[in-house]
Formats: sequence, structure tokens, C-alpha cells
Amino acid sequence: MPEKVLIYSRFPKAQMERFGQRFDLLNAAGQAPNNMFSADQLADIRAMITAGGTPLGGAAMDLMPKLGAIVCYGTGYDGLDLAAAARRNIAVGHSPGANAASVADIAITLMLATTRRLLVADDYVRSGSWAGAKTSPMMRPQAGMLGRRIGLYGMGEIGRKIAARVAAFETEVGYFSRSRHDVPYHYFPTLDALAEWCSVLMVAVRAGADTENAVDANILRKLGKDGYVVNISRGSVIDQQALVAALTEQTLAGAGLDVYEKEPHAPDALTALPNVVLSPHIGGHTLESHVAMQDCVIANLEAFFAGQPLPYAVPLG
Amino acid sequence: MPEKVLIYSRFPKAQMERFGQRFDLLNAAGQAPNNMFSADQLADIRAMITAGGTPLGGAAMDLMPKLGAIVCYGTGYDGLDLAAAARRNIAVGHSPGANAASVADIAITLMLATTRRLLVADDYVRSGSWAGAKTSPMMRPQAGMLGRRIGLYGMGEIGRKIAARVAAFETEVGYFSRSRHDVPYHYFPTLDALAEWCSVLMVAVRAGADTENAVDANILRKLGKDGYVVNISRGSVIDQQALVAALTEQTLAGAGLDVYEKEPHAPDALTALPNVVLSPHIGGHTLESHVAMQDCVIANLEAFFAGQPLPYAVPLG
Repeated sequence: MPEKVLIYSRFPKAQMERFGQRFDLLNAAGQAPNNMFSADQLADIRAMITAGGTPLGGAAMDLMPKLGAIVCYGTGYDGLDLAAAARRNIAVGHSPGANAASVADIAITLMLATTRRLLVADDYVRSGSWAGAKTSPMMRPQAGMLGRRIGLYGMGEIGRKIAARVAAFETEVGYFSRSRHDVPYHYFPTLDALAEWCSVLMVAVRAGADTENAVDANILRKLGKDGYVVNISRGSVIDQQALVAALTEQTLAGAGLDVYEKEPHAPDALTALPNVVLSPHIGGHTLESHVAMQDCVIANLEAFFAGQPLPYAVPLG
Repeated sequence: MPEKVLIYSRFPKAQMERFGQRFDLLNAAGQAPNNMFSADQLADIRAMITAGGTPLGGAAMDLMPKLGAIVCYGTGYDGLDLAAAARRNIAVGHSPGANAASVADIAITLMLATTRRLLVADDYVRSGSWAGAKTSPMMRPQAGMLGRRIGLYGMGEIGRKIAARVAAFETEVGYFSRSRHDVPYHYFPTLDALAEWCSVLMVAVRAGADTENAVDANILRKLGKDGYVVNISRGSVIDQQALVAALTEQTLAGAGLDVYEKEPHAPDALTALPNVVLSPHIGGHTLESHVAMQDCVIANLEAFFAGQPLPYAVPLG
């Protein structure tokens, strides 16, 4: 008799397929579980799968009195009320590092596409402007990567993978994080100092209350009119309104964004801009990354149902 | 009295500015020199600057009886009739390696944008499809870079820089070139064997008669329906008609192209495709790359006018 597992967030079916082969899935698909299932059905639920960015507070947890494990699909768990989970001794798991290479790759993709103005370039070819020898101020040569100063905000697993990739482009790499790491990059003790130094700021920090709006108007001003921001972490780390203002006024050269303040919504003021490259939170969205994340989810759930500690647990408190 | 230099190809003015400060420029701007200048004016010309891809045969050279140096802006010199230059003892110079980092960067940009479907992703956000939770078959997860087999066709300066960047993405790197190099990548003795092995073929070979249409229908078939081609070399290396057919029939997953058979024209059949990323030959188009290429041009011209051998000479014969 397979164990029952609630699916809390809305996930594409293909991503849940492997779980369905092992567990009896109750798919709330982003709806409130009590709107989708009866109290009787929820009474049996001991484990659930959620997307780490989906808000999940104590009240939702309390719909399932037997809930003992919340497993995040992916590395993030910023949507969870960890204190509420801790109060009920609910174990929380995630997929640390499983998508790190894939997320780091999208960071580099956005960095290159933004600084080399790839979307403008592609449009210049497709529209016939190139064939027509039309000049475009957007197509003027830009600074490339050689010798560029790239700043990493965050030096966790994803940050390290971004740094290793970025360094291969013959750049200088610097970083700011709460503590100095044993990595061959310049350490900056504040985000201010990093932003002052670099021309591309790559946001790879774990999102949380302490990082909310950390990249604000002041930081963007320090990056300056030749500066770029790339964000593959969470939208909450950047003051999105300040970012849109800086991009619109061209006090910042451009931005590459995979994440937004209120997903899946990107504001019109942002989508109207030519100097941004926007992707729909696809950082971890590769076949091998999904398999690796699913491996973590399955390992966490199987350990939990076997009465073992989660192998990929989020440290509580 | 500054020396006279003919500008043969059409270049943006900004790129010629430094030359104008040192030499007396006669700008033919892509027109036949004898349509732009009198025989008297051309009689004095001892050196010219051209784009290596621009066709330049013996007849054009013979318009300038005193011509002693042809200096290519950039690394390529495939448009030149080297035999004709050799017959007249005209020295030929170029800018080897000056744009290698910049070109390698655009190769990686195209590789990532194509395999991660960046243009489709950006459009998915901007069009509101993401916000509207519309599903798109183009947005399904794809294989990422982790463990991918990347094949380099060519292992010159640009090829080596592409390989170094690609390796940082945790890929396997293989290459084919006329001879084995002292590099830490798998060597394949034929392009066929490389195409059979890899899932992304990066074309970085020096273009010439021996490489014309080297990437043909057979090679594309070996790459297969999950395979990609990236070309930053010259359009002549790929059979463009076979490429368009493979992309249209989806027997090839996608292509990232910076160069085309007949620039600045990309055929409609290509620009209509969603599974390609197209840039208008901007590989070497960064500020630092232009400065480095200009340095080579100036060094070549100054050496020539001083009666010295060109420091960045194309080996003749």
C-alpha cells in the first residue's frame, strides 16, 4: 500500500511522474488543500511536496494533523514558515545542490545575453535591419568579458559554480557573503563595496528575511550606468521597483532576470524594456537537474516513511 | 606627411577613427576602389585595410600598382586571393587572436541561448504566457550542460578559448582538427567521428577552400535530432541549405549562428525558425576586441611603412 503524499504547489505533471510510481499522490496543484480534499483525506497525510518559493504557513500545515515531513522540490525553502514547522517537529527537506549546475548555467546565459545584447542582435538579423544596413545605437560595440569585474552576491553551491564558470571567461571575480570562503576570489566585506568594484552583479544568495531588497537603489547606483544585474536567486532579494526605475532611466545598463517579485508576473514596465533578458524561473529547469531534484525528494520521502532522518534536511532554527 | 591607406571594406566610422589619426585614409567603403578614386589617387596607395571575409582578388589589387601590404581587420583572411598577393610580393597581415576571447564568448552565448531556448523563454515572459500559465511545448525541460559532450571543430586560438570556457560548464570536450594538439580534450581523427560523439558541434575552424561545406547534411544527420550546431567561424563552413532543412524538419534540435553564407543576408527560411539564435557577425564586436584588432592593424601598417616585416603576418603559400 503506497504512502499518501500531498502535492502542494502547481507542478508540471511530467515532474511528478516518478513520485506517482512510488507514492499515492493527492495533488492540490497550488490550491488550498482543504478546497481540494476533505478533512478525512487530509487527516491521513504524513508528508507533502512543495516548491520552496510557494508560501506555506502554519495554518496550511495544520490542515494535516499527522504531517511529519515537508519536502521542497529544489534548493530553496524561503516560502516555508520554518518556525511553524519546527514547533510541530515537522522535518523539512530540500534538494541542495541538485540544480546548482543548471542554475549557474542560466546565470551565465543571462550574463552573456544581457552584456552582448543578444536579443537585440537576433532581432536585428530577423527583422532585416542587418541586411538593410540599418544602423542601431543598441548594436554599438559593448565591453566584453575579458578583464571584466564580476561580483558574486552569495558563495553557496550555486555561487561557487557561477564563479568557476565566470572565471573561465578571463574575468576578475569578487564576492560578498556573510563570511569569507576558501575560494580563489576577492572577498568584499560588504555588498556596497562589491557593487562599487564590479560591473556585473550576480545575485546568488539564499533568499530570506535578511536579504530582502538587499539590492536596492543605492546598490544599483553604485553599479552605475555601465553596470548589469543578473538574478537567479529570488525576486525578493532585489527592490524590483528600484531596478525598473534604474533600467528605464538607464542609470543601469541592463539586467538578466530569472526570478521576480511576484511570480509568475513580471511587471509591464520591465517586459517593455529592450535592455533586459527575462526568463520564467527556469534556472533549475533541465532534464538532469529535474532527475537530481527528484532523487533528493524520493530519498527524503523514503527515509521519512522508514522512520529515518531526512538525508537532505533543511537545518531548523 | 601621413602615409596613404585605402580602406577597402565598409567599416563603421568609429572603428576607423584611430587609423585616421595616423594615416591619410581613402575610404572605398565596400565599393570598387576605381569607382571611388581616380587612377592617379590609387597610383600612390602602398597599403590597404580590408575585412578578411570581403572578396579581394588580384584584379582589385592591380588597381594599385604600388600596393605592398594588405592588412586584414580581424583574424580571418578567407576573402583574399593569397596566391595573387604572393605573386606580387604583397605582404598580408591580420589580427591573430586579438578577438579570440570575444569570439569565444559569443560562441558560448549562442550555445547556452540555443540549448536553453532563451529567446523562447524571454518571449514566454514578455508575451504574458507565463503569467497566464499557458503551456508551451518549447518550454519543456531540455538537457543542460552538465556532462554534455561538446565537439570543437578547430583548435586554433579561438577553439582553445571556446574549449576552456566550455569545460568550466562541467561538460566533456572533444575536438577534431587537422592535427592533434597538446590540449586536455578528446581528439577525434575525423569530423564524422566527432559529430557522431558530440551533441553540440562548435564550428571554430579557419575557413578556406578545404573547409567549404565541411558541415554537410551527413554531419548534421550524425548530430541527430537532439543535436545543435554553433558557428562563429564563417558561413562557408556549413552547407546552409542542408542546415535550414535539418532545422525545419527538426532532424537537428537547434543552431546558434553568428555567420552566414552570404552576409549580411540570412535567408527567410532561417529567420522564420524558432529553434535558432541569430547574431549579425558580432563575434569580435566588443570594445576591447576592437582596440586589440586596431593595435594589430596599426602595428602592421607602421612596420610596413618603416620597411620592416609585418609583426602579424599571414604566412603566404
